[in-house]
Amino acid sequence: MSDCIFCAIAAGEAPAREVYSDDDVVGFLDIRPVMRGHTLIVPRAHSGGLVDLDPVLGGKVFAVGQRVGTAMRGALGADGVNLLVNDGRAAMQTVFHTHLHVVPRHNGDKLSFAKGLVVRRDPNPDETAALIRAALA
Amino acid sequence: MSDCIFCAIAAGEAPAREVYSDDDVVGFLDIRPVMRGHTLIVPRAHSGGLVDLDPVLGGKVFAVGQRVGTAMRGALGADGVNLLVNDGRAAMQTVFHTHLHVVPRHNGDKLSFAKGLVVRRDPNPDETAALIRAALA
Ligand SMILES: [Zn+2]
Ligand SMILES: [Zn+2]
Repeated sequence: MSDCIFCAIAAGEAPAREVYSDDDVVGFLDIRPVMRGHTLIVPRAHSGGLVDLDPVLGGKVFAVGQRVGTAMRGALGADGVNLLVNDGRAAMQTVFHTHLHVVPRHNGDKLSFAKGLVVRRDPNPDETAALIRAALA
Repeated sequence: MSDCIFCAIAAGEAPAREVYSDDDVVGFLDIRPVMRGHTLIVPRAHSGGLVDLDPVLGGKVFAVGQRVGTAMRGALGADGVNLLVNDGRAAMQTVFHTHLHVVPRHNGDKLSFAKGLVVRRDPNPDETAALIRAALA
């Protein structure tokens, strides 16, 4: 497990900008955000993908994604949100610990979204994380 | 409600190629598939988006998406799957009844995926639906 970065984050052994935490699920900023606020929701228990994810835990991950996505509307002025699981290398999964992407969207943001796919950085992620945490509190 | 196409499908009042059905959730082929087998998972109860979706029902939708996505590996030879919710017009939501896209992916399919975003058709959707239903049975 020690070579799984998301297990290490869930265990508090690797740094992350946490925005959500409960007994089963943790949420933190993607270090390479496509859009400012791009968050990953992760079950604490390791599973490589949907095939070996406990469905009850999957439901909890999704429910947290729904809450975080809704919070982004107030916290970041998002007009919409994409929830996304990439399951398998063919589907562009790059970390093999199941995770749900929560990506805030803004009206007319297609160009900045496309730019974000290339650049993937947030100049002030600590502030971004604080805004989301505050909206969830 | 009668002007919501997904409510009409859930009520059996509009046609769809159903692949999954239970008391709370229905799954059917997208009529404009990005990839062959592209399925929509829909709660029977109407909600416009994540903001007014009952979280318990959201968890059920996701669990069905997980099952259908896993079934696509056997049924359609998928190497991976994308699960996606577009919530809000800014996030490319076009039907305002919450739904989860399940899109099967194949190794090296980036070109056909890009083509699928434009063309969006399956020459034999009845066969495709039958394959997914059989894998879920
Ligand atoms: Zn892990
Ligand atoms: Zn509806």
